[in-house]
Amino acid sequence: MSGEAQIEAKKTALSIGIVGGGQLARMLVLSGARLGLRFKIYDPAPDACAGTLAPLTCGAFADATALLAFARDLDVLTFDFENVPASTLAALTDDIKIAPNPAVLAMTQDRLSEKAAFAALGIPVAPFRAVSTPLQMLQAVQELGVPGILKTRTLGYDGKGQTRVDKLSDAETAFARLGLSPCVYEQLVPFSRELSMLAVRSENGDFRSYPLTENVHDAGILAVSLAPARTTPELAALAEAYAQNVAERFNYVGTFALEFFQVAEALVLNEMAPRVHNSGHWSIEGAECSQFENHLRAVSGLPLGSTAVRQPSLMLNWVGELPNALPQLAVANLAWHDYGKSARSARKVGHSTLCAESFEALSLKLDALQRQSPTRAGGLAQGLLNRYLRP
Amino acid sequence: MSGEAQIEAKKTALSIGIVGGGQLARMLVLSGARLGLRFKIYDPAPDACAGTLAPLTCGAFADATALLAFARDLDVLTFDFENVPASTLAALTDDIKIAPNPAVLAMTQDRLSEKAAFAALGIPVAPFRAVSTPLQMLQAVQELGVPGILKTRTLGYDGKGQTRVDKLSDAETAFARLGLSPCVYEQLVPFSRELSMLAVRSENGDFRSYPLTENVHDAGILAVSLAPARTTPELAALAEAYAQNVAERFNYVGTFALEFFQVAEALVLNEMAPRVHNSGHWSIEGAECSQFENHLRAVSGLPLGSTAVRQPSLMLNWVGELPNALPQLAVANLAWHDYGKSARSARKVGHSTLCAESFEALSLKLDALQRQSPTRAGGLAQGLLNRYLRP
Repeated sequence: MSGEAQIEAKKTALSIGIVGGGQLARMLVLSGARLGLRFKIYDPAPDACAGTLAPLTCGAFADATALLAFARDLDVLTFDFENVPASTLAALTDDIKIAPNPAVLAMTQDRLSEKAAFAALGIPVAPFRAVSTPLQMLQAVQELGVPGILKTRTLGYDGKGQTRVDKLSDAETAFARLGLSPCVYEQLVPFSRELSMLAVRSENGDFRSYPLTENVHDAGILAVSLAPARTTPELAALAEAYAQNVAERFNYVGTFALEFFQVAEALVLNEMAPRVHNSGHWSIEGAECSQFENHLRAVSGLPLGSTAVRQPSLMLNWVGELPNALPQLAVANLAWHDYGKSARSARKVGHSTLCAESFEALSLKLDALQRQSPTRAGGLAQGLLNRYLRP
Repeated sequence: MSGEAQIEAKKTALSIGIVGGGQLARMLVLSGARLGLRFKIYDPAPDACAGTLAPLTCGAFADATALLAFARDLDVLTFDFENVPASTLAALTDDIKIAPNPAVLAMTQDRLSEKAAFAALGIPVAPFRAVSTPLQMLQAVQELGVPGILKTRTLGYDGKGQTRVDKLSDAETAFARLGLSPCVYEQLVPFSRELSMLAVRSENGDFRSYPLTENVHDAGILAVSLAPARTTPELAALAEAYAQNVAERFNYVGTFALEFFQVAEALVLNEMAPRVHNSGHWSIEGAECSQFENHLRAVSGLPLGSTAVRQPSLMLNWVGELPNALPQLAVANLAWHDYGKSARSARKVGHSTLCAESFEALSLKLDALQRQSPTRAGGLAQGLLNRYLRP
């Protein structure tokens, strides 16, 4: 092997550590192993589902000593879970390359700093107020009105750590329900639909975005993603500009997601996920290079892959338990993803991605599947596709 | 979870053992993990490359006791390597489900029985003679003429265990060169090109074939595969009929490959691989369901997936060492596969699959890649694509 080839070969034989061993880590391993990357997983749970595909180290996310020992021989440390204490990560940065950088994780861990950062970049966010006391809560609701959403500043996801406020008289109870922890009160945005943009940025500043994805949530948890979302070119360009703006501002390296509300022809940024994201799972089959592979290319210093769409793609999320696999497996061009987790309420246990040459063809295939084996996510997807086909 | 769903879920949480832990096993694990299947690997080499993705048991292929211990808790035993002694496998069949069945492995392990079986099915093979003595060798060459190929009956692959005979006076030396082991002498078929057909059959007899693939070998080892091969519908139908015929005759369960020589508008069967095959690697990106996933669906009793082509696909095999990864990774819609093996002469260490909307587009992308980072396989592929575009 020539000297140059040896150096280049080394770049693709990197050892990657992933903090968090859930389905995102699992899909990272499955896409990165093909590139010759080697993985290690860190997770508190001995049955973390990525642990069947790579060596698993068990430890608490806040245990800086254990994390440092885990990271010692790695080339890069990255995440399937963004709520690792920022102070823990800060202690590691001298010894190990971490991507995305801990500063952006710290920013997204606090809804208040996140919203302030986006607002400072000129990206529209829902009007909000910081709430630390019952008095502030009352003032926030008085100033911004109802309906609104009260969210804890930290550790919220999948609808956890948030509650809706419909009347001024609910304000105090809502704050008490979230344990009087520091919160953000947001005006409820009267959105027409939910969109997300997955994007990726490399170490040398190369930036690529996937087309906007339209999402449907069910009880606060993603149920359906459809890509590419039907939008005006202006809306797509706006989302891309926001994503590039965020990526450059934070010197972001890796894949991330921005979740938007569409309000008329504007986009209001709801939140950022500084990692691969559930609404980008369709890219495994539906894009030329998936969000997972692109994340790994970015954090490994490799060239980014094409984010072009192969075919219109529909993702159905399986939450709580898997549906019967056999009717799903019998559908042509449907990819069945079983994360190997046990069933549990509100737990993401798998997903299916259906691809076809058009939205019409997607709709026909979905209708046939629903007739044979109806699922709740499938029903929501039928509603979404109906809006695309019969607007 | 309902009772029915539990039963169906169990079907996709099967534990699969793979005998042989090379790149084929590795790609089986990478495609099957997505379905929720769990894997164990058996291989004599402690550094077998599938061992980074699934627990590896080290043992000799002929060690029936070790294999039985390995297989005890499995739902299915399957193979990435077909030369496991048939007697060893026969000892396991009472205790464990083995797919494909050991009888078909035994048949393909002996070139003489393989050729006799195909001839009995009415599938054209090159004229051949069994050779066990120097006298038989001389007679074989006299009867079938030169040029011809002498092949050991067992353990040959990638051009090993075979030698060409160009003159009658070479006959004895050739037989001596192969150690006087039992051989088959075959007439050299004056073929215009090499084609292979990947096909899969399920437990309940469902049969599906991938379109014919055109292959180019280099020093006896596969260098390039292009799919779908340009053929007449008659030739495609002939190959499919042969494949279905073989699959049904042997009650085959799983993916297999038939390697053909094209002679005018006829096909001469060269050999069968009772497993996933190098010439089907393009199907990972280029087909709706890959040869690997379909093999696992078949041996697990799941419905087969679609073998339809997504896009014309070109596979370049990396033999001996990997080329520089960076120019490859920079090509849109090129999938880079690094098996994680160390470089060694004649060793298959990786492959690239390039997909595009047409052969013209494939050719343009390949030409650009060759200008930047020429490879021997790439050069052979350019020659092949030139024949497609400028016949």
